[in-house]
Amino acid sequence: MELLKQRIVEDGIVKPGNVLKVDSFLNHQIDVELLNAIAAEFERIYGDRPISKVFTIEASGIAVACVVAQRFGVPLVFAKKAQSINLDGESFTTRIESYTHKRVYDVIVSKKYLSASDHILIIDDFLANGCSLDGLIDIAETAGATIEGIGIVIEKSFQLGGTQIRKRGYPLASLAIIEAMDAETGEIVFA
Amino acid sequence: MELLKQRIVEDGIVKPGNVLKVDSFLNHQIDVELLNAIAAEFERIYGDRPISKVFTIEASGIAVACVVAQRFGVPLVFAKKAQSINLDGESFTTRIESYTHKRVYDVIVSKKYLSASDHILIIDDFLANGCSLDGLIDIAETAGATIEGIGIVIEKSFQLGGTQIRKRGYPLASLAIIEAMDAETGEIVFA
Repeated sequence: MELLKQRIVEDGIVKPGNVLKVDSFLNHQIDVELLNAIAAEFERIYGDRPISKVFTIEASGIAVACVVAQRFGVPLVFAKKAQSINLDGESFTTRIESYTHKRVYDVIVSKKYLSASDHILIIDDFLANGCSLDGLIDIAETAGATIEGIGIVIEKSFQLGGTQIRKRGYPLASLAIIEAMDAETGEIVFA
Repeated sequence: MELLKQRIVEDGIVKPGNVLKVDSFLNHQIDVELLNAIAAEFERIYGDRPISKVFTIEASGIAVACVVAQRFGVPLVFAKKAQSINLDGESFTTRIESYTHKRVYDVIVSKKYLSASDHILIIDDFLANGCSLDGLIDIAETAGATIEGIGIVIEKSFQLGGTQIRKRGYPLASLAIIEAMDAETGEIVFA
């Protein structure tokens, strides 16, 4: 998606440790116009699938997933990190390791909101080593839901999450795939 | 807002400890059609204000704030809980106590995304004792931003956050105000 790649080149900042900061438009300040264009692109890719729900994980996936759900005209379900006293009863749970936050999270989804009758589109802002996405897939499979597609805004293909998930046969579309980036020069190479 | 109140009566669940669960449509599974109607209502209330940014806090405020930002055609900025290695440089910080999660959070906003030139609309899903909202107001005031309005989806007026914030002179609009609720009978009384 050219508009997105241009924006990454213009406003993304490469930091040491394979960190790409897109805080100015994607995950701290959010350019909602760009999200509209991103949602339109996911609709172009997955619009023929019988999507019943969009599925993501808090927190930074929520905004993009919300606009995608709006475009598909279906509810959004987001997985929650850690137990909350506002969630009771039976939940699907899994455990994910956050590369960004250097910690392990328990992730939960109420069984009321994901079931074997659901056809889901999984949406997330980033795919690097794939821990978050593995967690979402794990929950979806445990629920028996059909994964109709996975939509990622930015994939870092030099980390192996995307490769492994494609090998497992899931339909995975990333709107910008970064093959290499250099914290010293700031250079970003797209696939 | 009648549509919202009806939905709360139909699908909200009153739990002991003054907890209202609206997980089925607002903060776990999200009815995006309802968010569109909520955003339209906030536009009706604050549409004449010169809003430059919508401001909220992760995680459950993001979805509603995103759809409001979309309707106003402005960026969304969300405050982040706890330090992330993806946020560097200078940040505004404050500390909030979560009633729901029974813990204290450090909350940060990059100085790049909130400034004295901003006219903001603060949006959140819930207002009870007001700790989250106090934190957002604190950050906005430190940044020198003008608070043009505050929009809350559900206010529990038997807790005192809303009363205190109105006393301080902020324009605060809550789309559903709950005056009393009973966990035994499930009854919800709107103001």
